[in-house]
Amino acid sequence: MTANRIFNFNAGPAALPLPVLEEIQASFLDFAGSGMSVTEVSHRSKWFDDVINDAVTRTRRLLGLGDKFEVLFIQGGASMQFCMIPLNFLAGGGTADYVNTGTWSTKAIKEAEIQGCDIKVVASSEDRNFAYIPKDIAFTPGATYVHITSNNTIKGTQWAAFPDTGGAPIVSDMSSDIMSRPLDVDRFGMIYAGAQKNIGPAGVCMVIIRKDMLDMVPDTIPTMLRYSTFAAKNSMFNTPPCFAIYTVQLIMKWLEETVGGLEKMEAHNLAKAGRLYSLFDESDFYYGTADKDSRSQMNVTFRLPSEDLEQAFVAGALKEGLGGLKGHRSVGGCRASIYNATTMEAIDALIGFMQEFERKNG
Amino acid sequence: MTANRIFNFNAGPAALPLPVLEEIQASFLDFAGSGMSVTEVSHRSKWFDDVINDAVTRTRRLLGLGDKFEVLFIQGGASMQFCMIPLNFLAGGGTADYVNTGTWSTKAIKEAEIQGCDIKVVASSEDRNFAYIPKDIAFTPGATYVHITSNNTIKGTQWAAFPDTGGAPIVSDMSSDIMSRPLDVDRFGMIYAGAQKNIGPAGVCMVIIRKDMLDMVPDTIPTMLRYSTFAAKNSMFNTPPCFAIYTVQLIMKWLEETVGGLEKMEAHNLAKAGRLYSLFDESDFYYGTADKDSRSQMNVTFRLPSEDLEQAFVAGALKEGLGGLKGHRSVGGCRASIYNATTMEAIDALIGFMQEFERKNG
Repeated sequence: MTANRIFNFNAGPAALPLPVLEEIQASFLDFAGSGMSVTEVSHRSKWFDDVINDAVTRTRRLLGLGDKFEVLFIQGGASMQFCMIPLNFLAGGGTADYVNTGTWSTKAIKEAEIQGCDIKVVASSEDRNFAYIPKDIAFTPGATYVHITSNNTIKGTQWAAFPDTGGAPIVSDMSSDIMSRPLDVDRFGMIYAGAQKNIGPAGVCMVIIRKDMLDMVPDTIPTMLRYSTFAAKNSMFNTPPCFAIYTVQLIMKWLEETVGGLEKMEAHNLAKAGRLYSLFDESDFYYGTADKDSRSQMNVTFRLPSEDLEQAFVAGALKEGLGGLKGHRSVGGCRASIYNATTMEAIDALIGFMQEFERKNG
Repeated sequence: MTANRIFNFNAGPAALPLPVLEEIQASFLDFAGSGMSVTEVSHRSKWFDDVINDAVTRTRRLLGLGDKFEVLFIQGGASMQFCMIPLNFLAGGGTADYVNTGTWSTKAIKEAEIQGCDIKVVASSEDRNFAYIPKDIAFTPGATYVHITSNNTIKGTQWAAFPDTGGAPIVSDMSSDIMSRPLDVDRFGMIYAGAQKNIGPAGVCMVIIRKDMLDMVPDTIPTMLRYSTFAAKNSMFNTPPCFAIYTVQLIMKWLEETVGGLEKMEAHNLAKAGRLYSLFDESDFYYGTADKDSRSQMNVTFRLPSEDLEQAFVAGALKEGLGGLKGHRSVGGCRASIYNATTMEAIDALIGFMQEFERKNG
């Protein structure tokens, strides 16, 4: 732990890589020799062009997107995407399938329903409080898209592999696991991610969209709600959230140059999560809430023998410099969010504290 | 000029107060003793509650809003507001008046038209390339709202006083002059401002809305497009753009505690703009493009005797550490944007350069 810094297990906004934060800090009054802060530089300048183009290029390389996809930066978080997706893709008719794996899927479904779109919830794990990812789903033939949430921050579940949709493009909310592992991008029509978990600060949503999906966008919807507006103008139809995009750029650079790509990132993430899940599997004190085959590598949700102990655990951890371990207010319990930027040092510290807490209270 | 810092006359993103930038930099790895960067702190934490509540409280005090208004933070810039305004206020019928004073008004009008709303352009200064603010406007009796753009960054015009609309609430885009002068807020149903000119970095739009305007918001539109969603949740229905709101908070603090309020801010702004306009009025070399009674105190647009001289002027100024003086790409010429954060020292430097340039080229 660096002086004055805690180990941050927040679910989002979440820990960012320390070298990225240090670079932002060092150049904050004079960005790239411009004599201005990155918050003061024009988005119509060479300085910012370099930022956004580098962010896009690195994203393309990291995910192996080729030239079939556009990489866009849109404001409003994943919640804005819940409304933009049906607005852009179902306005001309058509149907879409949704899989409900928790709070965020439920919200995405609700926004399609508000618009009166023809959608079908083809699978749900609500019967067991969303503790698992549904299997053997019968998708609707000819669906315009299939919507899933790849990782569920609140319930601590994650799709280990993506479903065979019979050719329908997957539209996935990857807010909480984008860039945590390599992807077979050919399965996807669109991937979107609020930045504030794995790839940046709050205030920008990355949208990766297959170019042919843009053909569905109607010109009868407001300009700022059309994916085509952002694709046509390199995400700068109007002033973009420059600082957030700049941070995304630095994180993509960190992923490529420091981590060494998504295979290495995934191996690191599996090792981190594996240590926590092993502890649960060997313990009679801690237990995970997600089914084993649906466990998230990003959000490790767990319970202790009583709510009193859970409260004491969260408070005790905070005193030791381990923050953000309280479960989401809608489910209770405990949760360690261990996104890309969480170090093995942080996992060591957490496991040390957990073992000590069990010894004293088990 | 501080070491390595230029005098920044950008139209937006624009210069921010140096003490604010320095405070952000100093606390960037450990915000308010949290042991986290402000970009890593949960928006559901006491730390961030303090930020957003202080930003709102100071905004209320600075503008004298009383309790009739809500102060909201919404993503997507003013361009998103162009679509949200008719969507929220005209969905149930009704008509609205728009005054067209340039590029941004035109865009606002277009977004209402895309939605098929019943709006009327009651005045326009397009006949003389938007060089003036229309007078003696016949507003539509019973209009749901009257939309104006209080300051026009591109054309360099500004409403010196707000029109008598016969009781219809004014909805004003104040992106480029909010907090530059005191306001009689009773005239307004809504004020909105992309932060990146006078009150923060790009990535957040401040929306000040009279509470009774919220009664018009239909629940048939997407959740993230309803003003009522943001009002009900203190702008945190979903993760807000935390860093941008934090910067807004620091700028409101600077306005109150360093500047001393909006009367003092206005006096300073009038003095700054007055020096430039006096120079035009006394010169045969520089001339302002806006009518005298419509001149903006924020964006001073001017021409030189030829386009070649304008290019030489902008390039020469940059060499002397004076940046951002090129006019908007749609109109050419020169422009000095002198928002709240622009110091008198910057004006001195600009006037010195202008006099020298005229001596050499006049």
